Amino acid sequence: MEPGPRSRPAEPGPCVSASPSAGAALPASGAEPGSRPAAVAAVLPAGGCGERMGVRTPKQFCRVLGRPLISYTLQALERVCWIKDIVVAVTRENMEEMRNIIQRYGHKRVSLAEAGATRHRSIFNGLKALAEDQPDGKLTKPEVVIIHDAVRPFVDEDILLRVVIAANEHGAAGAIRPLVSTVISPSADGCLDHSLDRAQHRASEMPQAFLFDVIYDAYQQCSDYDLEFGTECLQLALKYCHTKAKLLEGSPDLWKVTYKQDLYAAESMIKEKISQEICVVVNTKDEESVGYLLKEALRNELNCINITSTPLDLPGRDTQNFLMAQCYSFIHVNVVSSDSHETQRFLSIIEESSLPLLYPVVVVLVCFLDFTLVPLTQKMESLVWIRDLAKEVKKSNVLLSGLLINHSQDEQKLQESLQQGASIIGSLVKERSSALAGQLLVA
Amino acid sequence: MEPGPRSRPAEPGPCVSASPSAGAALPASGAEPGSRPAAVAAVLPAGGCGERMGVRTPKQFCRVLGRPLISYTLQALERVCWIKDIVVAVTRENMEEMRNIIQRYGHKRVSLAEAGATRHRSIFNGLKALAEDQPDGKLTKPEVVIIHDAVRPFVDEDILLRVVIAANEHGAAGAIRPLVSTVISPSADGCLDHSLDRAQHRASEMPQAFLFDVIYDAYQQCSDYDLEFGTECLQLALKYCHTKAKLLEGSPDLWKVTYKQDLYAAESMIKEKISQEICVVVNTKDEESVGYLLKEALRNELNCINITSTPLDLPGRDTQNFLMAQCYSFIHVNVVSSDSHETQRFLSIIEESSLPLLYPVVVVLVCFLDFTLVPLTQKMESLVWIRDLAKEVKKSNVLLSGLLINHSQDEQKLQESLQQGASIIGSLVKERSSALAGQLLVA
Repeated sequence: MEPGPRSRPAEPGPCVSASPSAGAALPASGAEPGSRPAAVAAVLPAGGCGERMGVRTPKQFCRVLGRPLISYTLQALERVCWIKDIVVAVTRENMEEMRNIIQRYGHKRVSLAEAGATRHRSIFNGLKALAEDQPDGKLTKPEVVIIHDAVRPFVDEDILLRVVIAANEHGAAGAIRPLVSTVISPSADGCLDHSLDRAQHRASEMPQAFLFDVIYDAYQQCSDYDLEFGTECLQLALKYCHTKAKLLEGSPDLWKVTYKQDLYAAESMIKEKISQEICVVVNTKDEESVGYLLKEALRNELNCINITSTPLDLPGRDTQNFLMAQCYSFIHVNVVSSDSHETQRFLSIIEESSLPLLYPVVVVLVCFLDFTLVPLTQKMESLVWIRDLAKEVKKSNVLLSGLLINHSQDEQKLQESLQQGASIIGSLVKERSSALAGQLLVA
Repeated sequence: MEPGPRSRPAEPGPCVSASPSAGAALPASGAEPGSRPAAVAAVLPAGGCGERMGVRTPKQFCRVLGRPLISYTLQALERVCWIKDIVVAVTRENMEEMRNIIQRYGHKRVSLAEAGATRHRSIFNGLKALAEDQPDGKLTKPEVVIIHDAVRPFVDEDILLRVVIAANEHGAAGAIRPLVSTVISPSADGCLDHSLDRAQHRASEMPQAFLFDVIYDAYQQCSDYDLEFGTECLQLALKYCHTKAKLLEGSPDLWKVTYKQDLYAAESMIKEKISQEICVVVNTKDEESVGYLLKEALRNELNCINITSTPLDLPGRDTQNFLMAQCYSFIHVNVVSSDSHETQRFLSIIEESSLPLLYPVVVVLVCFLDFTLVPLTQKMESLVWIRDLAKEVKKSNVLLSGLLINHSQDEQKLQESLQQGASIIGSLVKERSSALAGQLLVA
């Protein structure tokens, strides 16, 4: 067992459940009824080699938007404040890479254990790390332990809370899903022996949770055969500790990234998630109407997206707010000047925040001008600095583009331009293509 | 049973297996050994309501790159020449929509049957359509029938051939996959009763194939209970006809589009597939070297992508070749003029082909110029016609953009520009964002 590194440059999102209500929802442990919430830790087996993915890189280390998949899963667990420790079991070869991931993305409460040759052995090693008294006393034995997969990044607090509460009551609990395909049993000659009634069976998914003593006891008694060939922790609790796990229906989001298509799906899901929030930044000298019109056009173009606006008045409370709100898409509306200073100042705030460490941050600098009054190319010439600035900030994972919108006096033309501008912004926000950073687009 | 419409404007890709060798690989039917290949038809139950997707639209009608998912599945089956008829079972409400899809995307050999209330009833109706003598005599009873899902668009000829050959030999055959999750059986109180040994079980996937008489006989004997609650055709063949299906390991591509994330994955897979082929079109007066350099840069930027080049010499054989090759990404290199006529001529060929009916076609007009000799904005001004032309061809699903690449005399700068140009092209080809059509990009 190795503790994670201490220097942590980034914060992987705020803890979403710091409020006492979430803590209160956690039942007290059996030993001291009603007195305090159960202490909870999590174990993540991450020793797999990703052979099913058809790529060399183990799937938990495959990059999604530039960041290893396992970092997303850790982020999801870290956002749940009442999970005190997270033990990740990785192979000796991947130990160094895992340490780098923890440091680079600022993961907290994460310790490392060495993975075994099989999934069950890795989990067992993770549990040992929580059970043993550590020399540095960093980890304490939890009452309830969550077991989750490194390759299920979309787990949310609701299902985690539900399995923990059920485990506290039943000794063991796990998420299940309806079967997508019928399950069959082949005979020795590769023919159908029988098929199973789909209604009578479920897919066992993750997360699962256990009273620590139950699952640790089960692993300690576990036969070599089970450690080698077993696949189901709930089964071990049943077989060795006679603990019948409570089964809880989970959401489709619990799916496991297994094949190449799952990696594509994960990337799209993450892109969609971080594009739900767009912040329109207007400078205080703005005429207001144009920024407002663009906001409306964006609202129409991009359904169910939360669009906020904030004046750029630094250092102000509002600016801090959108950084805290974990927004990764900024539309900086600049109507008065082609000056780069304000934009540079704004980009510095983004670069200095932890935002671009976690996701590529899209910044679109929008300029309005009447194309009939000012030649488009003249305006473009005055904005060529965007190209160089974009090249600079791209190194920090910030994707800057420029967008010129025709501020026509003709109402219909203006609406068309706004609509096209909103489509372009929508595409930049959704795709987050780094190749298109630095371009000056026109609507 | 209703035959499909007769007017078919588009060809959904060439038949990939017209060669006699594919036919020869098909074993002769049992009745007349060695005399001729078995007649094969396919039934696609498409009566599902897509409740698992969390959207109103049934998943088979959900759009992927603008085209309904079922059209991709039909396309995959149509590319296999030895499948004589494809019967799609759709609900009465979706009959009209399905007819429109067949007409719009030019599907061939497709007939419609009315879906039943359950999957088994829909399949039964599809089989009836093949069994009965039709008044117009359009469909003939096949010897072997393939049953496939409308929502598994990535089926390929290899697995279809394998299930058909195995069905011919064993009476029934189906594709299987290893289980991704452990399967468990819950007790009545929602707790774990037992878990199944993952090594002893498989997921039953599609396609499946049957001797027509076997599966039709099974459905005719089938109890109401089985028609209502059954999920497995192989099981019906076993139960009612004592036919033990041969099980064949399929590829991960057989996966079923079930949830929202699967739709994302399907879109990414399709985008990747159609981006594997890029055609660089050079005009004959080209200096050759620049087009060649860009081709090399593209080859380095986009791994494992097949890049061909063709001179634009119309009407020529080469131009026809790339249309036949089902290429959906064209890089039109134009070094000599800013004239729109050549581009318009080229776009007309694309528009008149069936290419943009099936997928959005990306066309990037690339102009090289030395930015130190000609002011960039001057060149841009001479290319503003791209904007209007792009708006026009976008209506036909052709996405035109312009790309200016710095043809610097400095070798290193030229390489940088080529590399950036290749990245931009890569992004345009992979993302196929219609919002960015008409933009003039700079590398």
